Amino acid sequence: MSLELDARPTPQATTTWLPGRADLRYGGDYNPEQWPREVWLEDIALMKQAGVNLVSVGIFSWALLEPREGEYDFGFLDDILGLLHDADIDVDLATPTTVPPAWFWKAYPDSHPVTRDGVTLGRGSRGMVSPSSPDYRRAALAITERLAERYANHPAVVLWHVHNEYGAPISEDYGPHSVLAFRTWLEEKYVTLDALNEAWGTRFWGQTYGEWDEIDAPRTSATVVNQTSRLDFARFTSDALLACFTAERDAIKRHAPHLPVTTNFMATNCPSIDYWRWAREVDVVANDHYLVAERRDNHVLLAMDADLTRSLAGGAPWMLMEHSTSAVNWQPRNIAKRPGELARNAASHLARGADAILFFQFRASRYGAEKFHSAMLPHAGTSTRTWREVVDFGADLGRLSAVRGSRVEARVAILWDVESFWAHDLEWRPSVELQHRERVVAWYSALWQLGVTVDFRHPHDDLSGYDLVLAPSLYLADRRTTDGLGAFVREGGTFVASYFSGVVDENDTVHAGGAPGALREVLGLSVPEFLPLYADQVVTLDDGTTGTGWSDDIVLEGAVAVASYVDGPAAGGPAVTRHAHGDGSAWYVSTRTTGADLEGLVRSVLDDAGVPLPVDHPEGLEVVVRHGDDVDFTFLVNHAETATDVVVGQGTELITGDAVDGRVGVPAGAVRVVSRPRG
Amino acid sequence: MSLELDARPTPQATTTWLPGRADLRYGGDYNPEQWPREVWLEDIALMKQAGVNLVSVGIFSWALLEPREGEYDFGFLDDILGLLHDADIDVDLATPTTVPPAWFWKAYPDSHPVTRDGVTLGRGSRGMVSPSSPDYRRAALAITERLAERYANHPAVVLWHVHNEYGAPISEDYGPHSVLAFRTWLEEKYVTLDALNEAWGTRFWGQTYGEWDEIDAPRTSATVVNQTSRLDFARFTSDALLACFTAERDAIKRHAPHLPVTTNFMATNCPSIDYWRWAREVDVVANDHYLVAERRDNHVLLAMDADLTRSLAGGAPWMLMEHSTSAVNWQPRNIAKRPGELARNAASHLARGADAILFFQFRASRYGAEKFHSAMLPHAGTSTRTWREVVDFGADLGRLSAVRGSRVEARVAILWDVESFWAHDLEWRPSVELQHRERVVAWYSALWQLGVTVDFRHPHDDLSGYDLVLAPSLYLADRRTTDGLGAFVREGGTFVASYFSGVVDENDTVHAGGAPGALREVLGLSVPEFLPLYADQVVTLDDGTTGTGWSDDIVLEGAVAVASYVDGPAAGGPAVTRHAHGDGSAWYVSTRTTGADLEGLVRSVLDDAGVPLPVDHPEGLEVVVRHGDDVDFTFLVNHAETATDVVVGQGTELITGDAVDGRVGVPAGAVRVVSRPRG
Amino acid sequence: MSLELDARPTPQATTTWLPGRADLRYGGDYNPEQWPREVWLEDIALMKQAGVNLVSVGIFSWALLEPREGEYDFGFLDDILGLLHDADIDVDLATPTTVPPAWFWKAYPDSHPVTRDGVTLGRGSRGMVSPSSPDYRRAALAITERLAERYANHPAVVLWHVHNEYGAPISEDYGPHSVLAFRTWLEEKYVTLDALNEAWGTRFWGQTYGEWDEIDAPRTSATVVNQTSRLDFARFTSDALLACFTAERDAIKRHAPHLPVTTNFMATNCPSIDYWRWAREVDVVANDHYLVAERRDNHVLLAMDADLTRSLAGGAPWMLMEHSTSAVNWQPRNIAKRPGELARNAASHLARGADAILFFQFRASRYGAEKFHSAMLPHAGTSTRTWREVVDFGADLGRLSAVRGSRVEARVAILWDVESFWAHDLEWRPSVELQHRERVVAWYSALWQLGVTVDFRHPHDDLSGYDLVLAPSLYLADRRTTDGLGAFVREGGTFVASYFSGVVDENDTVHAGGAPGALREVLGLSVPEFLPLYADQVVTLDDGTTGTGWSDDIVLEGAVAVASYVDGPAAGGPAVTRHAHGDGSAWYVSTRTTGADLEGLVRSVLDDAGVPLPVDHPEGLEVVVRHGDDVDFTFLVNHAETATDVVVGQGTELITGDAVDGRVGVPAGAVRVVSRPRG
Repeated sequence: MSLELDARPTPQATTTWLPGRADLRYGGDYNPEQWPREVWLEDIALMKQAGVNLVSVGIFSWALLEPREGEYDFGFLDDILGLLHDADIDVDLATPTTVPPAWFWKAYPDSHPVTRDGVTLGRGSRGMVSPSSPDYRRAALAITERLAERYANHPAVVLWHVHNEYGAPISEDYGPHSVLAFRTWLEEKYVTLDALNEAWGTRFWGQTYGEWDEIDAPRTSATVVNQTSRLDFARFTSDALLACFTAERDAIKRHAPHLPVTTNFMATNCPSIDYWRWAREVDVVANDHYLVAERRDNHVLLAMDADLTRSLAGGAPWMLMEHSTSAVNWQPRNIAKRPGELARNAASHLARGADAILFFQFRASRYGAEKFHSAMLPHAGTSTRTWREVVDFGADLGRLSAVRGSRVEARVAILWDVESFWAHDLEWRPSVELQHRERVVAWYSALWQLGVTVDFRHPHDDLSGYDLVLAPSLYLADRRTTDGLGAFVREGGTFVASYFSGVVDENDTVHAGGAPGALREVLGLSVPEFLPLYADQVVTLDDGTTGTGWSDDIVLEGAVAVASYVDGPAAGGPAVTRHAHGDGSAWYVSTRTTGADLEGLVRSVLDDAGVPLPVDHPEGLEVVVRHGDDVDFTFLVNHAETATDVVVGQGTELITGDAVDGRVGVPAGAVRVVSRPRG
Repeated sequence: MSLELDARPTPQATTTWLPGRADLRYGGDYNPEQWPREVWLEDIALMKQAGVNLVSVGIFSWALLEPREGEYDFGFLDDILGLLHDADIDVDLATPTTVPPAWFWKAYPDSHPVTRDGVTLGRGSRGMVSPSSPDYRRAALAITERLAERYANHPAVVLWHVHNEYGAPISEDYGPHSVLAFRTWLEEKYVTLDALNEAWGTRFWGQTYGEWDEIDAPRTSATVVNQTSRLDFARFTSDALLACFTAERDAIKRHAPHLPVTTNFMATNCPSIDYWRWAREVDVVANDHYLVAERRDNHVLLAMDADLTRSLAGGAPWMLMEHSTSAVNWQPRNIAKRPGELARNAASHLARGADAILFFQFRASRYGAEKFHSAMLPHAGTSTRTWREVVDFGADLGRLSAVRGSRVEARVAILWDVESFWAHDLEWRPSVELQHRERVVAWYSALWQLGVTVDFRHPHDDLSGYDLVLAPSLYLADRRTTDGLGAFVREGGTFVASYFSGVVDENDTVHAGGAPGALREVLGLSVPEFLPLYADQVVTLDDGTTGTGWSDDIVLEGAVAVASYVDGPAAGGPAVTRHAHGDGSAWYVSTRTTGADLEGLVRSVLDDAGVPLPVDHPEGLEVVVRHGDDVDFTFLVNHAETATDVVVGQGTELITGDAVDGRVGVPAGAVRVVSRPRG
Repeated sequence: MSLELDARPTPQATTTWLPGRADLRYGGDYNPEQWPREVWLEDIALMKQAGVNLVSVGIFSWALLEPREGEYDFGFLDDILGLLHDADIDVDLATPTTVPPAWFWKAYPDSHPVTRDGVTLGRGSRGMVSPSSPDYRRAALAITERLAERYANHPAVVLWHVHNEYGAPISEDYGPHSVLAFRTWLEEKYVTLDALNEAWGTRFWGQTYGEWDEIDAPRTSATVVNQTSRLDFARFTSDALLACFTAERDAIKRHAPHLPVTTNFMATNCPSIDYWRWAREVDVVANDHYLVAERRDNHVLLAMDADLTRSLAGGAPWMLMEHSTSAVNWQPRNIAKRPGELARNAASHLARGADAILFFQFRASRYGAEKFHSAMLPHAGTSTRTWREVVDFGADLGRLSAVRGSRVEARVAILWDVESFWAHDLEWRPSVELQHRERVVAWYSALWQLGVTVDFRHPHDDLSGYDLVLAPSLYLADRRTTDGLGAFVREGGTFVASYFSGVVDENDTVHAGGAPGALREVLGLSVPEFLPLYADQVVTLDDGTTGTGWSDDIVLEGAVAVASYVDGPAAGGPAVTRHAHGDGSAWYVSTRTTGADLEGLVRSVLDDAGVPLPVDHPEGLEVVVRHGDDVDFTFLVNHAETATDVVVGQGTELITGDAVDGRVGVPAGAVRVVSRPRG
């Protein structure tokens, strides 16, 4: 039963990088099958104009490459790869297994995924296959094998791109193949039904299993379904998808062992995948990122996803595999990017460790589901602002080649565990105000506003390199987490936990003695009762800050109150606490603090941890440093509408080529990168 | 076709009570199967500490008692019943038929219920079986028979508890077993298809049936489905569940004819069960009640459910089978009870006729769907406020033993007919502002605020004992209702009807001549046209009150206008009317009046009925009297945040033991019970 | 592939009218099967009293006429038709095929429709059959044939009414019959799969079809489904329903070639039917209209639907087949009509070309789904306001017989293309603020407020008779539209397009070069990028007006800016433009303008087009002129609460019989019709 936890990977730097040129990579998805051949020639010329040196090809080409089962036609792919190679544009070659051809659905109709409510999903879309279908797996490996065989040594190909966005748009499948695979997965995990019954707590509501084949997928029932079964189904789903990936990867490796293989992640935006487990299976970590168009602070969320991606890569350079030049088409209101926003967004990814900046897609489609999605080359062609910014940013990237391979360093880490996310957001928690992602975003945003660079870490990771570790939402925490955080604090670290943390173990079982369970000793307190707040309730603390959504009845067991409740159900009791523990300290925040209140709290814990704030940090200016072997690169991204300048020391601004002597000016909306000797 | 109505029970006092001790009963659900045996011993010791004298055991134990079909293992139950008996704790022994074991689903997959939309509901939850499945009924009777046989004469067992919360979380099943059973039920009711076609009005929209097996369950269709078919399907569903109950009850009675049998009702919160019909089938009426956590007036709703439960019991003592010590976990925001609220809630049930106060559950689960539901013993153990209040209330109950068997008397009754509720809330009524439960709550609340004790009665009941009868929402009213209410008023009673009452007969057919159909003569008016209001519309009456949601075009036919509309679509016409009829009077209120306006109206009708208001009634103080043979018990529950005192005469306060001479003080949030000689 | 477009009908005047009397027609649906025969006699007497001269009979009678498959019983129909004829009341005889009998569902259960989500819809409702079911088609033709045979020469019958409200309450069916029929429809349209793959853009997301039977209905998938497949499925659905109609019509014509055949449309309220195609298949255009009860401007929407109906009829007289005397029962709040509203609504239809005014239904049902729907004769009978208004309006109609056959003329046309509606409102458009119907209503309402009479036209129509043509929402526009609008403007017309128009062709493929694609040349501008606005964003134009929802990045290519953006994402750029083109001009409005701002804009374009505004147009007074051969009829409907008068010249007011010399007074809420010599 501990199999799962023992098997958890220590995040490890992936060290492989794309072979070939020393430049930063620039480009995007390229779908030549949508266009006649004369357009290909025009496209390649335009790619050269924009500085494109890498394109992803073939993602949706299965139906063309294998028009009937077992009959292959690689003509168009041979042709376009040859043209790209002739133009010195490298190729990230995709296996096209994200969308099986129409013949597949006719032959294997039971490979359609089924929703929790029992709806069998139809065709004509994407991502619509059961990952556990043996027919799908066989067909996917067959086309992958043929592609790998044919293009293993093609000089254009520098990277293999397996599938596309595993887990999106849907992940869980409740069809018959998944039910069978889930049972097998459970048998491997638990070995005995006794162990499963114990872990799931089936004695509640009389659900003890006597045979493995009595277990179904946790589909919609009369009311809430055993949460642990749902948590395991989420783990199974991530693993089932991962098995699809590794099978294709291994097929490629048999033919092309010299080339890196990746698949495109979606960081915090695909909560059905446990990327910590996946990250060690790819050679290069790649990520897709799209702005939440209507959130005015979407650049902060972008930074968060970039930081998580870098952390998944163990600090090594990573690829921004997809983002958009301007609006997407699948959000409610697809706000277009403003002038300069393309460069700011791309630069922020770059600043946070990306060595490749790619877009979806090169030329805007005229038909199909995403015809209103922006592209490098819009419908209206080259006489557009978007195209000009694409070309300009390509030129900027050319000036930043020295950045390649440099790394970001952080003294602060946020704990991120998607298993906790899954468990936390299941049904029948004490309050709908409890939302895993909300607290992570809140704490990350406060640190971003203060200019503090952050890593993300799994709770089982070695945290000793950090001064401050935050757990904005760590509902699920096992003994290993208890031990690790205890050691971290005793050895001098500062730890901060937000409410509803440490409550359950890996089986969603409440720790003996109740909250904060796994964190009780390190936090020096217990919570005999949760005190959720009314929807409209605001509680006041004696330091003048306020909270909403949640409060706790706290009994101090070593901790001291930093702030106490003035009103609300916990009036008179502690609200924020600090526990001096060994050489370090552990904080607990028992209510939902936001905005300036949360920034003030973050200042306090940073101060307690000895993490200095930037001395010179104009509002809206994003500052991140990448460290090379000998040189530091300070990225300055000005999100404000006014020009600013900051002290960066002696060096050279790489975009303008200007020498810098102390301060560097950053025009409104502009990006600057200052190179200076390390130290 | 009148079979249904003839068969309606006259509510009758159930006189059976639990054998054994003379105390009030205290305890809760106890699920020992969730814990190792050493915890059982600790639990029993703690029960004794808290004054527990009754626990419900075995509700979810089917899978343990019958691990494979036909193989039984009663070891754990023998053991725990023995331990409880040794500790002098009585047992309410449950049949575990609310959740069939996992082997059942594998063997009989078509016993899953199906939703109106055709979703077959899955496992891993509760309440998820078709009540009409013959496989389920056979299996349920088999385990019940074995349990009854084994424990019929066990000295610990004082009560049998069949199933759990019939009708929750779902009731209607649209699966194949229900379709067959529904046809049989219809044949029994209607005998001929002609009678069914007539009752359902199938000539509208061309739906005449020519064969019984053309009739399907009224599942989701292209648009609204014949409402009468849905009303009959609701009646069938209540009856199908009742048949499950009576079959188990009868099996128990064969072995243990000396013991009472019950099942836990949910008063107004399970609108799919016709409890008037059910109440005569149980020996003791038992009810589960949970606060609507986010409603600040949830103690008023509690009182309403307690009054309905007492009424279902025909005035006899009843059991509060489940409630919570603090928060539940299945509402959006599960607000914890504040200090003292546990005692106030329990005392309010007691005041309104309960002789047993039980909680769900004794020890908080660490796993499963309800692990965040409060319990008598929280996760954090005995050093908690909750545990202390549990122990304190147990001690209070010990001081209140004399209350047992005393009864509540009321001069005011509210008509409650769940068939009218079902019919009223179906689709395509004149306005979505029409909501059956809303008006009942509104009128009940106004009476509660004024300190008036209320019974609930079915419209067919003998009402002659009441001074005032209210019909806040009596959409469906047949001839028997017409006759009964007519007699009640002519003989001197005061009757009040709210809008959209009396409109249809038992087949949801509009009475000839239109609204208010069945009540036209008694109310002395007709309503040629309903005048629903806009969502944002407020109409003013000439007495200064206002209404929303609804108005009527009223033609007076003997009644006089008490208040008239100043504006709105009925401007100038009557809004509130009074009809002097025989020796009594009948009022009609044609718009949605709330708050102080409604309280004023209630004062007027109480005055008209000669029902006096309490002379001394501080705001927030709940006062209810239970009448013993020689002694009256005045319950005083102070929901306010300030202390108060009231005149209660000469007697003894039972909680403190203090003598009372005239006035008794009730501290803020406290409960007091004054005993004094009857008269 | 151009089959679809070549086949589009030129809207053509239908010239057939009902045989017999010269009066305007008055009456409603009559469902005698709901009542005993003695009520029929009473009803007929009341019809005579009200001036009824036409009733629709038999719409829901299939189960009575064919109680078992192949067994017929026409007794009741013979009887009632005889009685009606004896009373000189004409009959619109319906085929009852909208609701198959219960025996049909038992025999052919797979004829139930299936929703996009896979729910098989149940019985007991209406409109619940797959139009592609061969069993349904055979059964429907059988009963139709028998009816036509029997009643072809019945003297009461003056019109045949096929089915009822095709397309409501649902239209699309995803069941197996529809899948097969859809494939056949596609083969007929595209002939080759290459053509289909090209038209649908299946190369996006890898969906190329290799066999016809790989194509499924576009049911719910993992994410959005190819939009062109959905557009074609919408076209197929309209055609499948139309095939049902034409088959029944042809069966009737074989027996009764001398009588007109119709079916009741729902104008803008059944967006699943392409009424332009249907209109040429009926002999008389008939429409059902129901007010949106809670919209205070529902009389404007009524006028819009009446104008569209007249336009569908090619300007010929049409029938208002159904509307309501007062409230309906299927909206959230079914507001009753106020005194006089019945006459105002009916008069507005009449003013806009209706020569028959019918209601649903004559006598209010006491049972069934619509028992709370108003009728000519309410539940409360004849001593009601509703009945009095029914009788009064019948008398008014008698005074207006001369109006019959006169026609409405308009100088302004709004383009209406339901294919564009379908395509526009599919998923993944740039913003949810884009709503096809919203812009049509907004522009129509502005014209109504200004008193301008409007026709609707299909974009392929000959527009040369108009001075001003508006395209409030013409997302889909093909080359023929480009050519037609180009010619219209060059030859002196004024054209106005709102944003997101001209974007795609008939296959939902973006026109080369991007927006406004098909309209680029005529508008004299291009839109390199859409600039959707935030939900809460208001942009200001330099003429002081404001916009929401949308803006564009506009490049002028001949057009000039009439107004420019002061702020927002397009700040400084053009907002409203005008392009002098040939002898005419073309306007473009790139943001959502409403209320007084839009009225101001409409004034400008009317002025540009040389369309004069009414000189005397009191607010709330609806003025429409019907032109007879020698006489003009000016309809004056006063929606205001104050009396008014207007200049109408010399003539006679037909309701009062008063002579008019210059001005005519219209009391508050009243209707007046002035007849005067044409010219």
